[in-house]
Amino acid sequence: MLVFLLIMSTGTLLLLLFDMKRMTKQLDEIIGNFGTNELVRTNTHSKILIQFIMKINQLIYLFKQDQQNMVKKEKELKQEVTNLSHDLRTPLTSIKGFSELLTDPSLSEAEKKEFLSIIQKKIDHLTMMLMPSMSYPKLNPLISH
Amino acid sequence: MLVFLLIMSTGTLLLLLFDMKRMTKQLDEIIGNFGTNELVRTNTHSKILIQFIMKINQLIYLFKQDQQNMVKKEKELKQEVTNLSHDLRTPLTSIKGFSELLTDPSLSEAEKKEFLSIIQKKIDHLTMMLMPSMSYPKLNPLISH
Repeated sequence: MLVFLLIMSTGTLLLLLFDMKRMTKQLDEIIGNFGTNELVRTNTHSKILIQFIMKINQLIYLFKQDQQNMVKKEKELKQEVTNLSHDLRTPLTSIKGFSELLTDPSLSEAEKKEFLSIIQKKIDHLTMMLMPSMSYPKLNPLISH
Repeated sequence: MLVFLLIMSTGTLLLLLFDMKRMTKQLDEIIGNFGTNELVRTNTHSKILIQFIMKINQLIYLFKQDQQNMVKKEKELKQEVTNLSHDLRTPLTSIKGFSELLTDPSLSEAEKKEFLSIIQKKIDHLTMMLMPSMSYPKLNPLISH
């Protein structure tokens, strides 16, 4: 009876330690290749170890989720900066063109007035784009002051 | 002798399980309050468990470091957007002012020419700011195309 208990107890202990050694390697791989969707796997029947491993996996899952959210957020912000930058350059080119036309001495007063009015509208449009807007929601907190 | 071995083996097993239960709680707190600099602490003398815990702590450390880097990166990017937005608005206001002055019929031809030249220079400056530059290194990959 005592021998049986000793074998059981030592066996359980050894299995537990063996399982932990295996999981340490798994964790090492997970840390090394963080992009993959690996979690720690265990063969144990010990409820306590299972709960411990579940917590570790929860941590890994949260870590990956957090990283994905951050990457997504950064990507969205960058996309908006790219959009804004592009949207700003188009009217600027146009304003430059009209200001060059205005140096033509053969222009009538009416034409000059019209071109100046276009320039002013385009400047107003540009200024508007640098205010909080529906078009660049991610940039709003940044361009509002 | 057998009794002694049994007590040793069972004792070690129980201590290990008790330690794991304690660490599960610690992990739970770490997950709940991720901002703190907590790591998992163990009282065990088992080398295998210590190595396992070291890996878990490495994961927690990497997670926190990664979060801090992401937050820093986002902050820098946002700061540059704020700077760019501010730097763009100042010349825009100035261009608007000169374009309004140009509608004044009492202006001499020389003055008109000068104001148009100022407008063009400011437009060129604005266009330059939307090109890759030393001033907005974080935004460069975004505003270069």
